[in-house]
Amino acid sequence: MTKIGNLPDTVQKKLPPRSVERLSKYRRLLSRLDQSSGRFIFSHELARLLNLTPVQVRRDLMLIGLAGSRRKGYDIRALIDLIGNTIDKKEGHNVAIVGLGNLGRAIAAFLRKSKSRLNILAAFDVDSGKINREIAGVACYDNQRIPEIVGKLNISIAILTVPPDVAPDIAALLTRSGIKGILNFTSVPLDIPDSVYLKDYDIITSLEEIGFFINN
Amino acid sequence: MTKIGNLPDTVQKKLPPRSVERLSKYRRLLSRLDQSSGRFIFSHELARLLNLTPVQVRRDLMLIGLAGSRRKGYDIRALIDLIGNTIDKKEGHNVAIVGLGNLGRAIAAFLRKSKSRLNILAAFDVDSGKINREIAGVACYDNQRIPEIVGKLNISIAILTVPPDVAPDIAALLTRSGIKGILNFTSVPLDIPDSVYLKDYDIITSLEEIGFFINN
Repeated sequence: MTKIGNLPDTVQKKLPPRSVERLSKYRRLLSRLDQSSGRFIFSHELARLLNLTPVQVRRDLMLIGLAGSRRKGYDIRALIDLIGNTIDKKEGHNVAIVGLGNLGRAIAAFLRKSKSRLNILAAFDVDSGKINREIAGVACYDNQRIPEIVGKLNISIAILTVPPDVAPDIAALLTRSGIKGILNFTSVPLDIPDSVYLKDYDIITSLEEIGFFINN
Repeated sequence: MTKIGNLPDTVQKKLPPRSVERLSKYRRLLSRLDQSSGRFIFSHELARLLNLTPVQVRRDLMLIGLAGSRRKGYDIRALIDLIGNTIDKKEGHNVAIVGLGNLGRAIAAFLRKSKSRLNILAAFDVDSGKINREIAGVACYDNQRIPEIVGKLNISIAILTVPPDVAPDIAALLTRSGIKGILNFTSVPLDIPDSVYLKDYDIITSLEEIGFFINN
């Protein structure tokens, strides 16, 4: 494996969203494999395990400055580390879950079990039975305290699982409070500034998409 | 609004996944608007509400055979119906949730509340406390009965929310049982035949992607 060299920041900034998504997937898969020193993996193996083409995998790894050895492939441990150096912030990201209904609680529990550099520091809700308690291992605060807590705990990412009718207002409040990214489970299109990175997880839309393709 | 005419099946089959996803989003948004006769919407309004470009919206609607009137835009009711005719199967799709943990239950409850042509007919789990009971309004069966129940109830889509270690085996069992599409929440890459339409909902990967872009 040859390291092409430290890429200037400007190159890293230009990584396309799809590449970042795949790099994250590579790492999650690699982290389940044996990472002892001297363990290697070929791009075609990685590709097969993730239903991608080897060319795609090699192109993504080139983007972060790696070329595999034709004979041995990529050193698994080094690959995990380099992906981390590229896509992770050193201290991790602080995350809040906004809306502790069934879905919010399930996601909180899931994330607390998972190994990642995501720190679930707070949850928000309007239910007085949840406020000021620990739910699914996460401290729950009143929605009204979003600006205060987001600032104090330096929370940068919000997972939005509130009811649809309040989603636009809560998203606006999160934006004003300095949130930088939102994972939106509410199925409501959010009108937020481009400076906030938005990703939509719209379960029904996805099921309808699956439905369309299996019809044809 | 001018209907370009019934498109031959071969054209509909060629709709790209992203267009289907957007058409589904258009419909969900439109369904919240006033649909009285004579209510129209412009492509630029639809675009703004969904953070898309008007050109993109017009192109998607052209794909399903619609051209808007420059003066009035698109008839909302007719647009909803035409999208439905294009992407829905008449009798809807039968869906099963496989894995009734926190996430599975939350999704079951969410889908039962939502208006869509998705019929949640069954859930599967290995927990004897859940099997043969109704959980979140859905009949829960033993995982071992997947082939029998999928066939009997004509279930075509599975939502996979099982623990990661069993995900590959369960996905293989679903495939052998005749499932046509899988929405995979397990974060495990699934090696299933191309004939099964797979969509991955990997929450951690998505949060890491958001994290990368807000760093830069």
